[in-house]
Amino acid sequence: MALDDIREFMKESFPQAKVEVLAVGDNSSTLRQQVDESHLRPGGTVSGPTLMGLADAALYVAILGEIGLVALAVTTNLNINFLRKPLADRALLAECRLIKLGKVLAVGEVTLYSEGQEEPVAHVTGTYSIPPRKDELSA
Amino acid sequence: MALDDIREFMKESFPQAKVEVLAVGDNSSTLRQQVDESHLRPGGTVSGPTLMGLADAALYVAILGEIGLVALAVTTNLNINFLRKPLADRALLAECRLIKLGKVLAVGEVTLYSEGQEEPVAHVTGTYSIPPRKDELSA
Amino acid sequence: MALDDIREFMKESFPQAKVEVLAVGDNSSTLRQQVDESHLRPGGTVSGPTLMGLADAALYVAILGEIGLVALAVTTNLNINFLRKPLADRALLAECRLIKLGKVLAVGEVTLYSEGQEEPVAHVTGTYSIPPRKDELSA
Amino acid sequence: MALDDIREFMKESFPQAKVEVLAVGDNSSTLRQQVDESHLRPGGTVSGPTLMGLADAALYVAILGEIGLVALAVTTNLNINFLRKPLADRALLAECRLIKLGKVLAVGEVTLYSEGQEEPVAHVTGTYSIPPRKDELSA
Repeated sequence: MALDDIREFMKESFPQAKVEVLAVGDNSSTLRQQVDESHLRPGGTVSGPTLMGLADAALYVAILGEIGLVALAVTTNLNINFLRKPLADRALLAECRLIKLGKVLAVGEVTLYSEGQEEPVAHVTGTYSIPPRKDELSA
Repeated sequence: MALDDIREFMKESFPQAKVEVLAVGDNSSTLRQQVDESHLRPGGTVSGPTLMGLADAALYVAILGEIGLVALAVTTNLNINFLRKPLADRALLAECRLIKLGKVLAVGEVTLYSEGQEEPVAHVTGTYSIPPRKDELSA
Repeated sequence: MALDDIREFMKESFPQAKVEVLAVGDNSSTLRQQVDESHLRPGGTVSGPTLMGLADAALYVAILGEIGLVALAVTTNLNINFLRKPLADRALLAECRLIKLGKVLAVGEVTLYSEGQEEPVAHVTGTYSIPPRKDELSA
Repeated sequence: MALDDIREFMKESFPQAKVEVLAVGDNSSTLRQQVDESHLRPGGTVSGPTLMGLADAALYVAILGEIGLVALAVTTNLNINFLRKPLADRALLAECRLIKLGKVLAVGEVTLYSEGQEEPVAHVTGTYSIPPRKDELSA
């Protein structure tokens, strides 16, 4: 699955999202998201839903990278631990790694950073339910 | 804690949020959120981050209802199970119940519905870290 | 599904377990477990794995009550919040309620108590992957 | 914190456990557990509570390695994803890494393997509440 194809797909599927796909493949993905006023909460920190949304997108991209551009994969479970306050003036980075890619379920973990910082701001594990794949359908 | 005070506090703290506090007290809260284009994903379903954000707000309001208007309570963990596709043309309802309110941590669960539907669309458990309370500080 | 059948099934499937099925049906179950020395940790509290095991069994029984005695349902995710120290000299009670019973996944929540206490000791949400059902296979 | 001290402490604290501490330090730990009949479920797989218990112990050991032999740290949240069926005739390995060690909460992740296998059988994230430390108390 080429990086350009996934970028195109994400842009068409999520026109509102400001998420940039930096890398995908090998059961992993790296995404970057600019942070603006709309993502901030009182006190100048990045909102929880912004972090959760980016992690969810990173899982989705990592799965697409393995199974192809299937719009029907859906999140069934997401667990997030908030670790440190993200910086308000930095972009967010998400590094995702799939730890299981089964026929029915895919499970992955995502570590989120404020760009340029070493310590993560949050850690996520998530499960996607994946639809029957093309090669299985044709069988 | 009066409902009006919490509503005022939420409006000042989260001017962008379109969340309405319907009820608070007795270790619980009920919130309602209008759904518009910005909350939808391809296929006409409500986005995961919208659900997570509403659940997080419901936990926060239920805690505020017990400990007072403390801006410093922060989410440390949130676990969400997505159960059914929310309806695109209905508001969301969140019913939250605290199951522990300790000195350091509060834990609650939230059930999310599309308004007018019986079956929930998602279920959330979350933990907040709560700051030392005023009466403890003065002790 | 009769209570006696499920009790018999659980006894054959888990001969070591000391879990008693008090009720099952209506997408719910109630289980009871005697606590003995083998379940205790230093300080006289009941061990985490004991609580997790009982919650897992309660989910399993609630699902069996709906889909029949299918040995192949397996846990895919379990999330537990420990709320209060269980009493060492009381049995544990688990009250389980399914919040989704789909074709592929079942999701439920379990509240755990020390018998006779009002406040729960732990809260669990869990997901089971369920095998294709008999009536579907015959279709 | 010397490996021998932690081994001794774990043996005294959990005389029943058959857990061996292989390594500790640098915010991480590696534990090994022999699997015997008492850990197996019908179908010859290792029980979920066995996996959860081992992961919980690995988190505890990694935390002890950083903060010293404090018996009072307690688990507040544990989230486990079951990935693959563990082998009945292999020991279990747990590799734990702390991702946050705060004053009040520590968060870590644990990957569990059947010994000699490359693919993990389960993945856990957990949170411990940690008591005030000695150097803070003396302050």
